Amino acid sequence: MQLPAFLSEECARIAPLSQKYARAAKQRLDGLSKPLGSLGRLEDLAVQMYAVQQNTPIAARPARMFTVAADHGVVEEGVAASPKAVTALMVHTFLRGGAAVNALCGAAGVDFCVVDAGVDAEAFAPDPRLVNAKIARGTANMALGPAMTRDQCERALALGISLAEKAAGDGMRVVGTGEMGIGNTTASSALFCAFLDFSPSEMTGMGAGMPPRGLVHKTYVIERALAKNREALVTREPLAVLAAVGGLEIATLVGLILGGAARQMLVMIDGFIATAAFVCAQEIAPAVRDYCVFCHGSAETGHARVLERLNVQPLLDLGMRVGEGTGAALGMMLLDAAARVYNEMSLLDDVGIAL
Amino acid sequence: MQLPAFLSEECARIAPLSQKYARAAKQRLDGLSKPLGSLGRLEDLAVQMYAVQQNTPIAARPARMFTVAADHGVVEEGVAASPKAVTALMVHTFLRGGAAVNALCGAAGVDFCVVDAGVDAEAFAPDPRLVNAKIARGTANMALGPAMTRDQCERALALGISLAEKAAGDGMRVVGTGEMGIGNTTASSALFCAFLDFSPSEMTGMGAGMPPRGLVHKTYVIERALAKNREALVTREPLAVLAAVGGLEIATLVGLILGGAARQMLVMIDGFIATAAFVCAQEIAPAVRDYCVFCHGSAETGHARVLERLNVQPLLDLGMRVGEGTGAALGMMLLDAAARVYNEMSLLDDVGIAL
Repeated sequence: MQLPAFLSEECARIAPLSQKYARAAKQRLDGLSKPLGSLGRLEDLAVQMYAVQQNTPIAARPARMFTVAADHGVVEEGVAASPKAVTALMVHTFLRGGAAVNALCGAAGVDFCVVDAGVDAEAFAPDPRLVNAKIARGTANMALGPAMTRDQCERALALGISLAEKAAGDGMRVVGTGEMGIGNTTASSALFCAFLDFSPSEMTGMGAGMPPRGLVHKTYVIERALAKNREALVTREPLAVLAAVGGLEIATLVGLILGGAARQMLVMIDGFIATAAFVCAQEIAPAVRDYCVFCHGSAETGHARVLERLNVQPLLDLGMRVGEGTGAALGMMLLDAAARVYNEMSLLDDVGIAL
Repeated sequence: MQLPAFLSEECARIAPLSQKYARAAKQRLDGLSKPLGSLGRLEDLAVQMYAVQQNTPIAARPARMFTVAADHGVVEEGVAASPKAVTALMVHTFLRGGAAVNALCGAAGVDFCVVDAGVDAEAFAPDPRLVNAKIARGTANMALGPAMTRDQCERALALGISLAEKAAGDGMRVVGTGEMGIGNTTASSALFCAFLDFSPSEMTGMGAGMPPRGLVHKTYVIERALAKNREALVTREPLAVLAAVGGLEIATLVGLILGGAARQMLVMIDGFIATAAFVCAQEIAPAVRDYCVFCHGSAETGHARVLERLNVQPLLDLGMRVGEGTGAALGMMLLDAAARVYNEMSLLDDVGIAL
């Protein structure tokens, strides 16, 4: 696999988690004032956090959500219910604090950051919560050729890594993978087909709403994109695949996931699109999985199949399909709950209970 | 059904929720800056909250968790892994802040209150977080006769109502149904058998740990308790059943659930034991269900069957089985998330998106 030097360096920093730490965490949990194993998945989260952080108290905060926005050329094929302009409108909504992800980051008590990785609009006005890093005004139409050039794809990966680097520098222990991009379920479906050998019909769903030309048409567009980019896809080379049928926000999230893991941060994977970024990140550095938490099962068609293939049971299954990082924000709440249990509970010995 | 006057008065105050308010809430949600219905269960929670509160903003806070403790005479049959004394030890742990429910109430940002409804120990020292309301030093052994007298049962119901009344007076909008009582999965299993016609073998699980004499023995004890109390159970009279095979903390929770609903509070139902209290409350006042949120599916054997029978999909399924209100505390986090979405998100019109 040919990786640019900056990416190889990241990969070298992502070590599989040591079982030694996982065992130590399990031992502590078994000594807390509760029946053995009775906190279920919260205990698994605590074990994972300790294995990542190798330090007590384990820390679920501070945490930062990154909602990365970009546009998709494939929208011109009529695959999305909303016009492209909605991506930019939603960036404004994020900055005004009026989107679902804002409400949920507020509920979870986590930082929120919007990233323009490639919105098809003029540069946004500076804002403390905005990273202005537009790589292009959206991708090219993948039904006609590669969505990104190799250079654009690498710049997006580097952007994601720089977000992780800045977050780590600011003391963050956890990052969230949010996204906004009209058309990005189409790109994500194509990535799942390319990396996991699903058929387009298995992976095609409504996205944010029924496409004007219907689901069969959306499936057909994905088939065309896969056929058109066959040469890149058959290489199975992750960056080639990502450039061919991915998106600028998705590639940025791939960088964020790798960069987060490389800096011993927990990485909260949101829904359908973030999972596509995860799959690509895992192709690049398999150990990245140890650092990731799969927050929720999206209602988007195909997500359940993908998670099953990955052998993942998501934390939450609330029928959500809004993206933006909303599922990851809820996952961050559970992560905080897990950390508090681990850090704050009394030992059975101190309570006076002998097992 | 013969109910004491104080209970009839509560029941009269529990009206089924008006569809008018539910429709209005749905309409507001459909106008928010997100795809229609894309917040899934969070939208259902918001609709329920608005239908209960009939007022905006909807409020998930302040909220108070009640962890009600009591002992069970049936423990002498060898149905529990832990000795009875652990109930009192855990009350001390709650008051010191070292239990799982403390950590999770901290994470959720909600009040916490311990209630001694019938712990088999001397009265606990006064504490601002403790309600000292011991009705008896535990129930009698239901394998030999009724667990409670009718008077004890009614006093526990009245206690639960008084907790709800005090919470409402303190401005609480939400109450949680926690419990602690060695032996109380045995009582809960018996209640499910009595009210829902399950067989003891379907409802018998490990509780906090494998009973010293095994699961088959625990099942046998429940069968004996049901047989011994047949005369009361065949009446199907909720208070007769509850007195026969319930518990002081369970009866208190029944009162809390009814009293909470009667005062337009959301009632967060925890796991196996709280669900047994719910089932009894629903027998007394069917409309109580509209006010309840089923927070999590417990890993305790039988809970999934009961929830299926009740046609309930719990919010969370994390393999937890610790009780205390831990699942309800996590549910309160999601309730807060739902309220924030409903209250804080921008309208599509304001964002400039036309659907």
